[in-house]
Amino acid sequence: MKKQITFILLFVFFTVLVHGQRKINRLPDLEGYVTLKCDLHMHTVFSDGQVWPTIRVDEAVRDGLDAIAITDHLEYTPLQEFVKNDPDAPWKISEEYAKERNIILVHGTEIGRNTMPPGHMNALFIKDASLCNKDSVWGCYEAAIQQGAFLMWNHPGWKNQRPDGIPKLYDIHYRLIEKGWLHAIEFFNNVDYYPLVLEMCKQHNLAVMASSDMHGLISDKYKKPEYINRPMTFVFAKERSHDALKEALFAGRTLVWFRDKLAGKEEFAKPFFYRCISVSKPYYENDKKIFIEVTNNSDIPFTLINGGKFPRTVFLEANTVTRIAVSKNAVFPLVYEAENILVGEKEFLKVELK
Amino acid sequence: MKKQITFILLFVFFTVLVHGQRKINRLPDLEGYVTLKCDLHMHTVFSDGQVWPTIRVDEAVRDGLDAIAITDHLEYTPLQEFVKNDPDAPWKISEEYAKERNIILVHGTEIGRNTMPPGHMNALFIKDASLCNKDSVWGCYEAAIQQGAFLMWNHPGWKNQRPDGIPKLYDIHYRLIEKGWLHAIEFFNNVDYYPLVLEMCKQHNLAVMASSDMHGLISDKYKKPEYINRPMTFVFAKERSHDALKEALFAGRTLVWFRDKLAGKEEFAKPFFYRCISVSKPYYENDKKIFIEVTNNSDIPFTLINGGKFPRTVFLEANTVTRIAVSKNAVFPLVYEAENILVGEKEFLKVELK
Amino acid sequence: MKKQITFILLFVFFTVLVHGQRKINRLPDLEGYVTLKCDLHMHTVFSDGQVWPTIRVDEAVRDGLDAIAITDHLEYTPLQEFVKNDPDAPWKISEEYAKERNIILVHGTEIGRNTMPPGHMNALFIKDASLCNKDSVWGCYEAAIQQGAFLMWNHPGWKNQRPDGIPKLYDIHYRLIEKGWLHAIEFFNNVDYYPLVLEMCKQHNLAVMASSDMHGLISDKYKKPEYINRPMTFVFAKERSHDALKEALFAGRTLVWFRDKLAGKEEFAKPFFYRCISVSKPYYENDKKIFIEVTNNSDIPFTLINGGKFPRTVFLEANTVTRIAVSKNAVFPLVYEAENILVGEKEFLKVELK
Amino acid sequence: MKKQITFILLFVFFTVLVHGQRKINRLPDLEGYVTLKCDLHMHTVFSDGQVWPTIRVDEAVRDGLDAIAITDHLEYTPLQEFVKNDPDAPWKISEEYAKERNIILVHGTEIGRNTMPPGHMNALFIKDASLCNKDSVWGCYEAAIQQGAFLMWNHPGWKNQRPDGIPKLYDIHYRLIEKGWLHAIEFFNNVDYYPLVLEMCKQHNLAVMASSDMHGLISDKYKKPEYINRPMTFVFAKERSHDALKEALFAGRTLVWFRDKLAGKEEFAKPFFYRCISVSKPYYENDKKIFIEVTNNSDIPFTLINGGKFPRTVFLEANTVTRIAVSKNAVFPLVYEAENILVGEKEFLKVELK
Repeated sequence: MKKQITFILLFVFFTVLVHGQRKINRLPDLEGYVTLKCDLHMHTVFSDGQVWPTIRVDEAVRDGLDAIAITDHLEYTPLQEFVKNDPDAPWKISEEYAKERNIILVHGTEIGRNTMPPGHMNALFIKDASLCNKDSVWGCYEAAIQQGAFLMWNHPGWKNQRPDGIPKLYDIHYRLIEKGWLHAIEFFNNVDYYPLVLEMCKQHNLAVMASSDMHGLISDKYKKPEYINRPMTFVFAKERSHDALKEALFAGRTLVWFRDKLAGKEEFAKPFFYRCISVSKPYYENDKKIFIEVTNNSDIPFTLINGGKFPRTVFLEANTVTRIAVSKNAVFPLVYEAENILVGEKEFLKVELK
Repeated sequence: MKKQITFILLFVFFTVLVHGQRKINRLPDLEGYVTLKCDLHMHTVFSDGQVWPTIRVDEAVRDGLDAIAITDHLEYTPLQEFVKNDPDAPWKISEEYAKERNIILVHGTEIGRNTMPPGHMNALFIKDASLCNKDSVWGCYEAAIQQGAFLMWNHPGWKNQRPDGIPKLYDIHYRLIEKGWLHAIEFFNNVDYYPLVLEMCKQHNLAVMASSDMHGLISDKYKKPEYINRPMTFVFAKERSHDALKEALFAGRTLVWFRDKLAGKEEFAKPFFYRCISVSKPYYENDKKIFIEVTNNSDIPFTLINGGKFPRTVFLEANTVTRIAVSKNAVFPLVYEAENILVGEKEFLKVELK
Repeated sequence: MKKQITFILLFVFFTVLVHGQRKINRLPDLEGYVTLKCDLHMHTVFSDGQVWPTIRVDEAVRDGLDAIAITDHLEYTPLQEFVKNDPDAPWKISEEYAKERNIILVHGTEIGRNTMPPGHMNALFIKDASLCNKDSVWGCYEAAIQQGAFLMWNHPGWKNQRPDGIPKLYDIHYRLIEKGWLHAIEFFNNVDYYPLVLEMCKQHNLAVMASSDMHGLISDKYKKPEYINRPMTFVFAKERSHDALKEALFAGRTLVWFRDKLAGKEEFAKPFFYRCISVSKPYYENDKKIFIEVTNNSDIPFTLINGGKFPRTVFLEANTVTRIAVSKNAVFPLVYEAENILVGEKEFLKVELK
Repeated sequence: MKKQITFILLFVFFTVLVHGQRKINRLPDLEGYVTLKCDLHMHTVFSDGQVWPTIRVDEAVRDGLDAIAITDHLEYTPLQEFVKNDPDAPWKISEEYAKERNIILVHGTEIGRNTMPPGHMNALFIKDASLCNKDSVWGCYEAAIQQGAFLMWNHPGWKNQRPDGIPKLYDIHYRLIEKGWLHAIEFFNNVDYYPLVLEMCKQHNLAVMASSDMHGLISDKYKKPEYINRPMTFVFAKERSHDALKEALFAGRTLVWFRDKLAGKEEFAKPFFYRCISVSKPYYENDKKIFIEVTNNSDIPFTLINGGKFPRTVFLEANTVTRIAVSKNAVFPLVYEAENILVGEKEFLKVELK
């Protein structure tokens, strides 16, 4: 009760209210696009999560996200003895709350079955989750697609459903792909990741995604400084808006980030890397060496390795200028593999320092 | 759904399950007692809080508490469009969960009225909160007392109800005191504190209390390192058990701690301080000075000032040994006031370094 | 010996050597200028400091400085039983070392007398410190000026020489000013500051300066997160070079920063503030309020207060976007005083959010 | 000059001087012994280090050490153009300084040769380093031994002298062992470690040692929280004194710690582990499980693994209580290997939770 009363009092007295604060993440835009930081898979008390939907918005503000989706399980509601069984309740409760906080809220739900196939699937950008809950899982997909849904296959290598941890496309997934109904697959989920997803997404032209799938508290799961941030999908959108986010996702313009790992299609990974990094002109030289500086202006640390006879690692710490001394005999540009940027199941991004 | 399935799989395979971790707080026991770290006032989605009751238990484990009470508002349930109106739901949901985690859960509720008097009152150690919800606030108190309740007057100087921030005992509070129905008053609430409460508690023989009154997330409100911890009531109990906690609270054996401030009755503050601190024998001397070490073996920093002609502050940082050089002419014991230990509205604890 | 040998081995094998890392400070440039972060007053074992000169360069790299001066006492060398008495030794030892690390090293020394007047004075941009050591302090100044020195009056309110802590210009200082030989005064020194210095600098057209005056370790004195950084002088230079730094200092283009406090002349403080801050268009409105975001893209927190009938503080945390809800009746621009930006002894910078 | 004057002023005015603070490390004593935290190998400007000797004492206070030795290279003094060539200067400069700060200072030096054998050797507990500097390395050892020295073989697998990183005892080392002149070998040096050293120490009854071998700043090398602390030798001494430290070292009563790794002889590792850990009685049970708590009351995290058919790891975080749920069918005591406690080259300590 305290909060509500405070609010009224303040409104009478003051004309300016400061409401809260959003962290700035140092993550560059791509040319022609803004980089939206997104986590589109999480839970609340309306399925098996442990928080009220507004907490998910508060966490997004604190973590500097641009967009979230609350995607409670459609058919699994173990708390319904105490909580109303309404799959659209998170949306109703948070829509206005998110708008006031400048967080783009995506209406979503999670359609799940206990076995793989088909596993779990998020339906995003829907209008009414309650209309998606059908007996057959295909019926669920169909109802979601009729609302214009973006379908994301969640944790495809989840060990409870794929004991070997390796994702596999089954018939039902191929049918979805053929109909153009599957739009994305999670590469990062919670603290796991599935390298093979990169090949699937490249082959079938799907968006690569990262989600926390959080049930409890983000801050307790992803403790700093061990974790830099929760898993994030970077979406390269034409502007910072709900509709531009949607357009960009359907177009598959994403990269994913978690801890020290960045992953996605080379067409996005490469320009993103070069937006994070800048190389100075030589600032000094002595008899044997030339000195240059490499600036990593982002929150993401990069590890570059040159695979020559005497391999040598360059570690570009986040938000830091790294000084490099190059032999006067060295041939420019210096060629490296970025060991923390995956552009294929077993393929690192090749980069140059020029 | 994920969590539950994981659990079953693990149970089949392994005989040992590691469940989680409780922080060790460095806070001494008193002779004959164990110091129980308690926060007995907080909220969940069952009134106007934003978390599921189990989160409150998880937060207690993380923060190293021994006991908590979830005390949702009895008569103020703004989320009941979505959440069942059952004042005992937090207890039902968390009882077993807390036992598994070795957290003492106290059954409680908050009885509130919009104006002061009487303000808000926590009823702790009750059996059935639903039986306490009466039309008259006195009826509520009576029903709680019939269940053996410990009544704590919450945030008595809360500015929404006492614009000057200064607590005042009204007739209804005196009536409660006369009947022996009022047992405690909050000195710390959330981030505020009310020095006058110490005088009220000493005069009427009540327990001095500290609570977070948390509605959102503890970790977002009390960010480290700015905040060492949430507000805590130290209860000096005969053992670490629910019943011993209850006995100690009714006997008024408490101290309260928040940030750098400790407060309570001198009979507890003084021995507690001497349990935190030890003074070494001189370990070295030169022509003019004798060197001693003062060890502060606790998480609480202490600030000592000697009020002589040339006042001088000794700052005993938490978990640290402070080296002191004393003039050979100095007279022992060195006498100080502990500026961060309140034993009265305007009275600091006097201490000696011997 | 270990280091040297390692170095040789690596040189044989590898063509690229990574040498170390410089922190990025988020501090904006002014239009037409780059902001050089400087600390131009510190000590080593060549007077009464406790580190070798190269440590000062390493600390500068770690802290993200652009320029430092090592300014050992010219006439006070208590360690000379063990260390050669050569006031230019720090320069000789660190010149190349600083160049390799892209730190601008300024050749300097500190000319001191035990009493005030004249107190202590740094001579910067000198050629040969040994030639500055004369019997009379005026002779020292003269010798320094003949080398083109920039003279900075250090800690003018240092309590050992000015027990009341308030700086005062004496005859000798006025004589220096008249001759155009005094160029700057320290506003921040170590952990102290002297508000009156702002008036002196404005009146006599001197540069406002901040220095650590460090004798021990920077990291032990200015512990994070309590301290954001050491005291820094921001010098607005035409480029990042030794000569541009010198030009800018003689022109008096500086601001100073320590902890949450920024100080200097309004002509620099105002544009600097507006380079740190940006205000969004309204991103949302409801019946009563308009919502805007204020981005503080710098490492410096700002505290704005509007001095109306109901004063209200806006706290713009460093590297954070603050959400503000404004009444629909509010008149733009919103007018504030920046309580942590001093532009006079008792004068805060006035700013607008438009 | 500032410091000295401050000191005098304070002495006149005040009778109590607070000098500084020593961190408390949570590391248990063994029965009958106190655990002295030692780092007995580090450098200053008197060989190729970068700090004045007093900094080494300050760092020891800050890090909560009990004893240090400053062991500058006897025959390698690259800074002697500027610094007096006196191998006993560190001792002369720091002896009184350390006493005032209650740090046990051990008089030492490092006797080195550019090749292996013999590599580098610390001579500790000597009287006069200058008398140890002989043409032949054996002459150096002899001179040190005549002064009662404790000889420690430093970084025996240092890659500059042993490219494969594996230590090997050469004839000269065997000769030292036969004469009883070699007393210890470094297991940890700087950030490296050499598992084979454990076998050497067990076979020849030598003390296992850990040292920082620091040349620059401890705080820059061992950044928290990545590093918990610098490498430390735990010496189990009869009391906290110089002579008791010496007796314990000659008796070989040590363990070594760095990051998450503890190493040494089983006779010390086993009781040390059991002093860190305590196991509670079952505090709760349900149909299938019994719940116990394991308290790790130390700064050292422990990782236990039971090597059964379904291996399962118990991670006992530092200063934390870990809750364990055991199947009712489980057989006590639970048997584990402590994966972070080495008692042989490839041998982990076996422990039981009872």
